[in-house]
Amino acid sequence: MVEEHFHVYDKEKDDEEIEHYDVCILGGGPGGLTSAIYSSRYGLHTGLITKDIGGMANLAHKIENYPGFEGSGVELMQKFHQQARKHGTEFLNTEVKNLKEDDTGYIIELENGRVVHTISLIIALGTTKRKLDIPGEDEFLSKGVSYCATCDANFFKGKVVSVIGGRNSAANAALVLSSIAKKVYLIYRQNKLNCDQSERENIEKKENIELVLNSKPVKIEGDKKVEKLVVDNEGKVKEMKVDGVFIEIGSIPIEKLTKKLGINTDERGFIEVDKEMKTNVEGVFAAGDTVKTPIKQVVIAAGQGAIAAWAANEYVNKKKK
Amino acid sequence: MVEEHFHVYDKEKDDEEIEHYDVCILGGGPGGLTSAIYSSRYGLHTGLITKDIGGMANLAHKIENYPGFEGSGVELMQKFHQQARKHGTEFLNTEVKNLKEDDTGYIIELENGRVVHTISLIIALGTTKRKLDIPGEDEFLSKGVSYCATCDANFFKGKVVSVIGGRNSAANAALVLSSIAKKVYLIYRQNKLNCDQSERENIEKKENIELVLNSKPVKIEGDKKVEKLVVDNEGKVKEMKVDGVFIEIGSIPIEKLTKKLGINTDERGFIEVDKEMKTNVEGVFAAGDTVKTPIKQVVIAAGQGAIAAWAANEYVNKKKK
Repeated sequence: MVEEHFHVYDKEKDDEEIEHYDVCILGGGPGGLTSAIYSSRYGLHTGLITKDIGGMANLAHKIENYPGFEGSGVELMQKFHQQARKHGTEFLNTEVKNLKEDDTGYIIELENGRVVHTISLIIALGTTKRKLDIPGEDEFLSKGVSYCATCDANFFKGKVVSVIGGRNSAANAALVLSSIAKKVYLIYRQNKLNCDQSERENIEKKENIELVLNSKPVKIEGDKKVEKLVVDNEGKVKEMKVDGVFIEIGSIPIEKLTKKLGINTDERGFIEVDKEMKTNVEGVFAAGDTVKTPIKQVVIAAGQGAIAAWAANEYVNKKKK
Repeated sequence: MVEEHFHVYDKEKDDEEIEHYDVCILGGGPGGLTSAIYSSRYGLHTGLITKDIGGMANLAHKIENYPGFEGSGVELMQKFHQQARKHGTEFLNTEVKNLKEDDTGYIIELENGRVVHTISLIIALGTTKRKLDIPGEDEFLSKGVSYCATCDANFFKGKVVSVIGGRNSAANAALVLSSIAKKVYLIYRQNKLNCDQSERENIEKKENIELVLNSKPVKIEGDKKVEKLVVDNEGKVKEMKVDGVFIEIGSIPIEKLTKKLGINTDERGFIEVDKEMKTNVEGVFAAGDTVKTPIKQVVIAAGQGAIAAWAANEYVNKKKK
């Protein structure tokens, strides 16, 4: 707990220095930015707290399934960002350091030293990549180990790489890498890929992608950089010479504030919401990949953001009455 | 009931003539088209049954709150349509005439005489405009009475018009008309508008929009076309000389198939779904404005479409095993 380090908030003294918001949105991915567009259009004084615009959507090399748009994740997120700015969202380019409830909402202490007050909160902090938790994974991070093919593929021109995982994100990573690397091993613990049919077909067309199924990575080895990946193939240990290991085995929610606020989550940490994107905590809403949903998609996060902003607007208007 | 007129489906005889789909989507608005993009990408054989591409979104003169896009509703819907086609959706340019369950899914008799079979259904039929139900409304339809400012505003250049309603759709209609008509009365039964702050501000800036609050239309009068609107202003009857009456008092779901299929709806007819967009009927999913949701928005319908297609894909794969 960091409660004891909290900036001592003195209502009388500090009130003039403190910026007041109707809603503060935490997170700058598709869910947070759409919440921002909507809540600004509702006329709420909206602050969006994030250092990073776009979130995980930035890692998408090509987005083909966001309706009405085709291009890179970065391009799409820039459009979302511009739209939120145009409608009046204030972007606070920092992170939350600490946060506490008061009788009118929440006092947020920011990393940059500022303190703000808000009537309501929308949590859209997204997820982070899941790790393999095997020897060598941390040691060789950025020395051959990567969690983002879109970001790092170019370092592996003409080299041999492995992608770990069998869902859409792994299939996409393998496809991105196949145009750059000499050879791509796609290593998955199940006996067939678990991705969309369209991705599966694209992978079959690529001659330099080789499927290594029923296989579990156990160790990453090398001297100064990755040289070898050791996998367990149904009990048999195989050593594979590779220059890169791209880990694409899913994502886990960023739980920074959920426990502190007492927000209910499922066993994996994804936030439980009702159909209006309300959490169990009064005045706190959630949207995007941090929420418990069957699949994680930009358009789903955006739809949730619109609903969360609507619910926050209803809440704020009731509070102000 | 039209059951008795149903095409007699003989499995042995008809099987070769009948097109089989994994999923048939009913409705071509944002919910249906996004379902189509996703289910085609999942590799499902996808048929989309609609005569009309775009649905109610087509009526939006300008869309500013669909993240990543600004332009007209028609433009946005064309992009959705192209994307679905590109990913392999088959568009059946007709409507459902009749439908019945069989042991492997649903047999659909189409208006164009064809019969198709599908394992699963996604209902995305949207809504239709709610009527005032006052004398003159039907009589003067297209003779001054309209349910679509975007479509019909141009017929009222330099004229005096009224818009009935006080939510976003009414506010938008008043704004669209204010650039074309000489004078716009915005008539609402409550004592203040119930639209977004941004719309309210835009309306305040327009000198030729006059708010007529606490007022209920009771009669539309004229000779060959609309000449007069009679309103009840807190018990006092007022006659207003107008050339047009634009009715924007919300929408009601198209319930064509819900009763036939035994789908649960709320008291207004909106379909009840779970978080995976499943209805209470096996193999039947729903998305878009036809679903019970707190607000109706293109991005929300699209998010629902993505989830419905995911759920249909899970269902179809289980059925095929």
